Amino acid sequence: MPPIRVTVWGENRHERTEDHVRALYPDGMHETIAAGLREHLDGEIRTATLDEPEHGLTEEVLAGTDVLTWWGHQAHDEVSDEVAGRVRRHVLAGMGLVVLHSGHFSKVFTGLMGTTCTLRWRNEHDRELIWTVDPTHPIAQGVPHPLVIAEDEMYGELFDIPAPDELIFISSFSGGEVFRSGCTWRRGHGRIFYFRPGDQDYPIYHHPDVRRVIANGVRWARSDRPGRALPEIRRHATGDFG
Amino acid sequence: MPPIRVTVWGENRHERTEDHVRALYPDGMHETIAAGLREHLDGEIRTATLDEPEHGLTEEVLAGTDVLTWWGHQAHDEVSDEVAGRVRRHVLAGMGLVVLHSGHFSKVFTGLMGTTCTLRWRNEHDRELIWTVDPTHPIAQGVPHPLVIAEDEMYGELFDIPAPDELIFISSFSGGEVFRSGCTWRRGHGRIFYFRPGDQDYPIYHHPDVRRVIANGVRWARSDRPGRALPEIRRHATGDFG
Amino acid sequence: MPPIRVTVWGENRHERTEDHVRALYPDGMHETIAAGLREHLDGEIRTATLDEPEHGLTEEVLAGTDVLTWWGHQAHDEVSDEVAGRVRRHVLAGMGLVVLHSGHFSKVFTGLMGTTCTLRWRNEHDRELIWTVDPTHPIAQGVPHPLVIAEDEMYGELFDIPAPDELIFISSFSGGEVFRSGCTWRRGHGRIFYFRPGDQDYPIYHHPDVRRVIANGVRWARSDRPGRALPEIRRHATGDFG
Amino acid sequence: MPPIRVTVWGENRHERTEDHVRALYPDGMHETIAAGLREHLDGEIRTATLDEPEHGLTEEVLAGTDVLTWWGHQAHDEVSDEVAGRVRRHVLAGMGLVVLHSGHFSKVFTGLMGTTCTLRWRNEHDRELIWTVDPTHPIAQGVPHPLVIAEDEMYGELFDIPAPDELIFISSFSGGEVFRSGCTWRRGHGRIFYFRPGDQDYPIYHHPDVRRVIANGVRWARSDRPGRALPEIRRHATGDFG
Repeated sequence: MPPIRVTVWGENRHERTEDHVRALYPDGMHETIAAGLREHLDGEIRTATLDEPEHGLTEEVLAGTDVLTWWGHQAHDEVSDEVAGRVRRHVLAGMGLVVLHSGHFSKVFTGLMGTTCTLRWRNEHDRELIWTVDPTHPIAQGVPHPLVIAEDEMYGELFDIPAPDELIFISSFSGGEVFRSGCTWRRGHGRIFYFRPGDQDYPIYHHPDVRRVIANGVRWARSDRPGRALPEIRRHATGDFG
Repeated sequence: MPPIRVTVWGENRHERTEDHVRALYPDGMHETIAAGLREHLDGEIRTATLDEPEHGLTEEVLAGTDVLTWWGHQAHDEVSDEVAGRVRRHVLAGMGLVVLHSGHFSKVFTGLMGTTCTLRWRNEHDRELIWTVDPTHPIAQGVPHPLVIAEDEMYGELFDIPAPDELIFISSFSGGEVFRSGCTWRRGHGRIFYFRPGDQDYPIYHHPDVRRVIANGVRWARSDRPGRALPEIRRHATGDFG
Repeated sequence: MPPIRVTVWGENRHERTEDHVRALYPDGMHETIAAGLREHLDGEIRTATLDEPEHGLTEEVLAGTDVLTWWGHQAHDEVSDEVAGRVRRHVLAGMGLVVLHSGHFSKVFTGLMGTTCTLRWRNEHDRELIWTVDPTHPIAQGVPHPLVIAEDEMYGELFDIPAPDELIFISSFSGGEVFRSGCTWRRGHGRIFYFRPGDQDYPIYHHPDVRRVIANGVRWARSDRPGRALPEIRRHATGDFG
Repeated sequence: MPPIRVTVWGENRHERTEDHVRALYPDGMHETIAAGLREHLDGEIRTATLDEPEHGLTEEVLAGTDVLTWWGHQAHDEVSDEVAGRVRRHVLAGMGLVVLHSGHFSKVFTGLMGTTCTLRWRNEHDRELIWTVDPTHPIAQGVPHPLVIAEDEMYGELFDIPAPDELIFISSFSGGEVFRSGCTWRRGHGRIFYFRPGDQDYPIYHHPDVRRVIANGVRWARSDRPGRALPEIRRHATGDFG
């Protein structure tokens, strides 16, 4: 297979308006996530952000992207319906998608899931432990059991998602809540991985194990189909085979 | 539990514009489907159709509906986005949904699935055999193996849906195609059942076994939660339990 | 449907040999579990124990049992292969099965799962919180979110089971571990529910919410098929239908 | 990764006792299956058969096998319990397993599934069409839709298996039956793929598309975990992480 082409999408607002976030991510969270991917993947790792024209996600960019990662939080509504629909179309046609943390409320993710994607939350420095419940999954390879994050925002159930096709990770938090933290779904010709950690207030995307999981997820989400096309309705003639 | 309240929704266009459909369903397909349900269920079985104000699906009607069945075909686009969104919201809040045949392309169903819901088709009087692959499921009770439909429109894979939570029935057709004909999904607080048979050109909804499956599906899709509410995001205080 | 017939099976050893267990369960854990079921179910709730002839599980007893609940711990090996095989055969033929806590290592459960069913554990009075992740499931109805158990043995992942057909509950413990605490599987014509809480050292089966879950599980596990029979191989003649 | 090591296990009885089978598979079905794998995989493709000592499946052979394929039919009972148990143990510890056709009734497969694995059958030269229902799955890559087999034994539902983790292929037959023909399950640390085609009376394992699917399945079933070990019970100390 040719080298993988990844586009790391970031909202890139907190980093420019809040000093403590800028201190953690001076070049933006997207650049930190991209740097983490470059540690694990040979390929082309680009970035795109909300305030670029078409949010940096033109038809051409998406057509040249094997896997897109998505981080957004405060500005989900500013993503245009057109671009969100374009991204969803590419996923259904075979582009891989890795949704991170607060991306759960993005138009891209909720549109693909069909549910509210609500959850419980608390931003009070909970310790997070991420346990593997599917040790055979490629995304779990090389990941400690548990993966420990000293401090992060808490997300708790009920996470209003379709039952995942594969449940890989479950988190617990200091407060006792649990969360389905690593989930996959297949939609159309595309593969989707959701991974929970990552609030902007913490240095999560510098964490080596978090970086490994995201890289594993990107590798897994890449389609091995030859082209990119939506499933299409068609009239099927009798005997139209063999 | 109090008697079930079902709303049978029908597009009701073919029946008024095509003689051969009117001959099969003189009062409209929705009335035939409703009559079938009345054979099996004690409860209130009402109907609603596209050309009523708000397509007969006001907030009040939906609030008083335990399970909605949906048949549409040629006029999916005429269902207003507002009403389609309202129906989806009620499903996510706990209303049961049974989608029939060409309802696979409705705004209600595709919005809940997040996929294209495309398929292959041919309207040439194929014989359909419907085989049970989950004999423990309540929807399969009392259903012959196979359920035989002498003539129906063919639907073939790939049916572009999320992998069902439960796959109950698989159909084969004279031409050799197969189809996942009976599928369930849970979304939010609601339960969804898709059942394939039912083209307007055939007397499918007079078939006693088809009627039984739809009634089983309606019974299964009814929520046993006490109220109706969407899952909601909320800030969760530490120690907020017990 | 006629009133449900439940057999509550208990190993009944700890209760007779350890004073602190006898203090919690003077008539045996099986009698306490049975008493909990009688609060919720109209039907015939009987018990059977290891030291009865054929462990109290003759062909006749099983044939007259709609749902069997299973608690064992220290004497799994003393259950004869013959009786364990008989129980599994009845499950595959349609008898419901509810496996409690340390029953995860019983011959009945491991034989039906095909895996080791290992896990991590610690008996140090962890607080357990049981969170619902499938709010539409009948077994979750009326159950608090979270269900709080002040003190219990800890079970942690990896729980080496087949991915459940339905994942209903996830537990967290004081120590930070998580566990898939409420799981269902369909096997043959039977339905199986595993529910985690219940070490003999704690008064778990007096807990009203635990009793409710077990009763919900028993109700759900009951087959609605008319008879009891194993799926059978057979030669299928061409045209053998309709 | 180092080159894959595959062991192709064959019962090798029909080929030696029935002329028409020997005509199709002069070196035994296992050699034909191995030859097909060699077309697609760089690695070490060995064979083993029933009548070798320990059926050719010593501890050493299995320890050196990444993926085992299994074809058996008339002599399932002659596979010793010890060897069958050894194979299952290796699967749960991480060896991949690809079960072919009548291998559904092997001790290895039924023991891992926990069900009867019964089905319907007819050996009357039905045409089989194999349709892909999960186009994103690696096992489906490069496989025609449908894959056409001119003549094969028929297998029909109900196939008494646990609901597959992934359903990839569904077959239909001339007689109208359907079958879940390509299924995966994860068990312990191992991955299992069942693929239906392959009666000894037909030249199935010479079919290029069948060979491709089996090779895809072998590639998929290989573990990417570093070692081979069963999941193990262990006492877990509080704070035993990070």
